[in-house]
Amino acid sequence: MEIPQIADVEDAARRIKPFVHRTPVLTCSAIDAMVGCKVFFKAENFQKAGAFKARGAHNAVMALTDQQARRGVATHSSGNHAAALALAARNRGVEAHIVMPSNSPKVKQAAVRGYGARITFCEPTLEAREHTLEKVVRDTGCVVVHPYDDPMVIAGQATAALELIEQVGALDMLMAPVGGGGLMSGTAIAAGILSPSIQLIGAEPKGADDAFQSLTQGTLVPSVNPKTMADGLLTSLSPRTFSILLQHEVKIVTVGEKSIHMALKTTLERMKIVVEPSAAVPLAALLESDFGQAGSRLGVILSGGNLDLKSANF
Amino acid sequence: MEIPQIADVEDAARRIKPFVHRTPVLTCSAIDAMVGCKVFFKAENFQKAGAFKARGAHNAVMALTDQQARRGVATHSSGNHAAALALAARNRGVEAHIVMPSNSPKVKQAAVRGYGARITFCEPTLEAREHTLEKVVRDTGCVVVHPYDDPMVIAGQATAALELIEQVGALDMLMAPVGGGGLMSGTAIAAGILSPSIQLIGAEPKGADDAFQSLTQGTLVPSVNPKTMADGLLTSLSPRTFSILLQHEVKIVTVGEKSIHMALKTTLERMKIVVEPSAAVPLAALLESDFGQAGSRLGVILSGGNLDLKSANF
Repeated sequence: MEIPQIADVEDAARRIKPFVHRTPVLTCSAIDAMVGCKVFFKAENFQKAGAFKARGAHNAVMALTDQQARRGVATHSSGNHAAALALAARNRGVEAHIVMPSNSPKVKQAAVRGYGARITFCEPTLEAREHTLEKVVRDTGCVVVHPYDDPMVIAGQATAALELIEQVGALDMLMAPVGGGGLMSGTAIAAGILSPSIQLIGAEPKGADDAFQSLTQGTLVPSVNPKTMADGLLTSLSPRTFSILLQHEVKIVTVGEKSIHMALKTTLERMKIVVEPSAAVPLAALLESDFGQAGSRLGVILSGGNLDLKSANF
Repeated sequence: MEIPQIADVEDAARRIKPFVHRTPVLTCSAIDAMVGCKVFFKAENFQKAGAFKARGAHNAVMALTDQQARRGVATHSSGNHAAALALAARNRGVEAHIVMPSNSPKVKQAAVRGYGARITFCEPTLEAREHTLEKVVRDTGCVVVHPYDDPMVIAGQATAALELIEQVGALDMLMAPVGGGGLMSGTAIAAGILSPSIQLIGAEPKGADDAFQSLTQGTLVPSVNPKTMADGLLTSLSPRTFSILLQHEVKIVTVGEKSIHMALKTTLERMKIVVEPSAAVPLAALLESDFGQAGSRLGVILSGGNLDLKSANF
């Protein structure tokens, strides 16, 4: 099982630099006052295609040999990885095949199509998604880029934390949301080297708490029927991401739906930026409980900004 | 009738610097593609108290003599000027008295109270507001700071355009929303000097088009029963702001409510930032019609970010 190292993260940073934004770091005095700490938000909601996923997708696609790339790339996803992979493929000048469930939001279909990818629709079950992806791969010979269980993808996601620490210096604590664990794994790899005494916190919805269960029980426990408004965090850890979180002693905190909604509202109203529910999960944890010592320096990766305004129900 | 000059704007910039943000300039490739020009957005939605109004209020309050300031300051407003004046007074260490209509949103009352101002409620009519303000002034001897018909306030608002041109260089066109005309007047004074060939455009809702009527007819025509979702633009020009817009040959464009709503949604979805309806009015005009030559450089002042998410009805 290949685990990316800090050198892979530095390679990723160089590789993706022409294609992704060096996103700004935002602060908010109102939120600092609520939390009692200085919070530095890495604004991946401003990233290309609206989420940190552009980092991992570009690293994976740009690292392919020309021979591999010519075959095109594929994934199944109804979310941010689909759009990110479509964009990365366009930037490489190769085809992207995205398997999407037939009930995926029209706006996400449009985003993927807007980047020039080919969409293959399937029934909205994991089985149908995997089966359809296998068929696409058989038919086209393209390379599958997994949304998180891929060392190149993890190394790409790690560049967000790398940049954040370059931008603001050492941090006492660093938080990211946890779904499949790609972002948190990359964050742990980058921050663990750059800032060894840093405390690493993964924030997870109570309704999809497989990382919490897995790290508490010391064995991989996938989510069964996860349910949360943080639709980017429904996926479960893979053996690879589980092992990285374990090795880096990442602590998982879980939060309820009301807290996530409140944190989402707080971000929009106080910071005047749009984030998606998944991105609000770390702030939800910060607002719920006493974190760190007063005055400590906390980093938060705001994972993405693809909010469905209608369904947010403000 | 005192009209601020560019030296007053430069004084204002120095005076307010410790108290307001030098807000960032944002760009969005998706919007550039829609408009066919390069658009530079001055993000006053990130300003202190959530709007450019912090600039004018701080300039007016910080320019008072100690003797004047000790008497406190007052205004009537249910909107951004109320919060801005309350904050400026707190920063000066003096009292602010805000006359607010009894039906003003609880969240705006809370913002004003949060900055430590005293609220006096009145009936929701202009007559009651003015009458109540007169009474507050009689009782306390405080200094009234008008939301726009004040040379110090106009000079303060002008610093947004001053900064924008410092940040991005010369522009072909500069747009701001027009309500009472304080922001547009300041913008015209600053930009007209720094970038003499610049085209100045004020954007106004069709439902509150007094500036369009006034500049077309060459005489001040106040709005009667204005109605628009851009609640910051309901006020009418004063003789002072009318005369400044006339002198600087500001062109007024008007837009309908559907366009404003669409521009608001575009800003949230594409730029991932929260703006209020008034701030979306210039973009509404840009999206509606062909502006400027392809590839020209347009500045837009995003006036504020105090959006009521519930009533935006996405």
